[in-house]
Amino acid sequence: MARWEGNARGRLERAALDLFTEQGYDRTTVAQIARRANLTERSFYRWFADKREVLFGGGEDFEQQLVAAIDAVPADIGALPTLLAAFTGLPEVVRPREFLRERSAVIAANPPLQERELIKLVSVSEALTAALVRRGCDRQTARLATDVGMAVLRSATERWMADERADITQVLSASAADLIAITADDILNVSDRRPSALGNP
Amino acid sequence: MARWEGNARGRLERAALDLFTEQGYDRTTVAQIARRANLTERSFYRWFADKREVLFGGGEDFEQQLVAAIDAVPADIGALPTLLAAFTGLPEVVRPREFLRERSAVIAANPPLQERELIKLVSVSEALTAALVRRGCDRQTARLATDVGMAVLRSATERWMADERADITQVLSASAADLIAITADDILNVSDRRPSALGNP
Repeated sequence: MARWEGNARGRLERAALDLFTEQGYDRTTVAQIARRANLTERSFYRWFADKREVLFGGGEDFEQQLVAAIDAVPADIGALPTLLAAFTGLPEVVRPREFLRERSAVIAANPPLQERELIKLVSVSEALTAALVRRGCDRQTARLATDVGMAVLRSATERWMADERADITQVLSASAADLIAITADDILNVSDRRPSALGNP
Repeated sequence: MARWEGNARGRLERAALDLFTEQGYDRTTVAQIARRANLTERSFYRWFADKREVLFGGGEDFEQQLVAAIDAVPADIGALPTLLAAFTGLPEVVRPREFLRERSAVIAANPPLQERELIKLVSVSEALTAALVRRGCDRQTARLATDVGMAVLRSATERWMADERADITQVLSASAADLIAITADDILNVSDRRPSALGNP
């Protein structure tokens, strides 16, 4: 991507997010976003199909770059460490921390945007699972590893947004340590703890 | 719930799912569902707001019963074993195996239904996280344990639908064992395996 194009796109994203935060997502128009970015509406539509896609436009890049990162991890590394290694590349793919923080707040305030985000995450998960299967992982393990990996990523992202000094590798390690602590409890003998069994000792 | 009510509701669910499977979700009307169940349209609307909710009508019961099951697990049991213990009660809450199998197929064939399912699962996850927080778990751990628990549940449900002889406790234990295997890899030193670092040994 040429530098001037990156600048136009970045300026549109920044302008859109500022306006969504200041006056609300629903009240913001494409014309206002373009004006705030000192660009024409025509430039806006060169980059985004509509105002919603300003929040999700990085989706495909994000997915493709994660899959490429998985493909670059040596074949003898297990499914979950492979995903975590791929996630360490994320800050280069996604936006600055305060952009993500504002984006989260805009999405949290708007149920249709939450739905769009959920669908995007399902698409990312399916791409990650397929990439693990291509590495020789069976589909059931690949899906569970992806779901668990996405759970760690969500936890790490919350840490990352909350702590200015943290880097992505630190927060992923911290959330991986939490995962280890959570799974250290005895989770195999589930029948011993059935609420009904507990009621009749 | 009185027996006759359960019968009417169950008959409507069964009729709807048969019609969705036979002729497609979009082509099925509420009038057809009621006729197949030998009930009136008016009876249909006593139970469900529209034909979509026949697939998701158990949502609130499901969530409430899971939360009640969590509340019934003794306080000294960790977050993830608590969730797994609560999940063992699921077959009594949800529908028979072949109902779930057909329901999955109908939803998988229809993107708006997939969206509805995702939103329902987010609501269930939030209720489970809140129930763990009420037990004294910090919010970050509760959310990660919920996401990991839901990943195990999804894996276990696939096993349960695929294997006629399996019971829910067996498949939850099997998927919990898969989780232990997945997290047994070294996942703490994520920076050692960054694709960029691997490219420059």
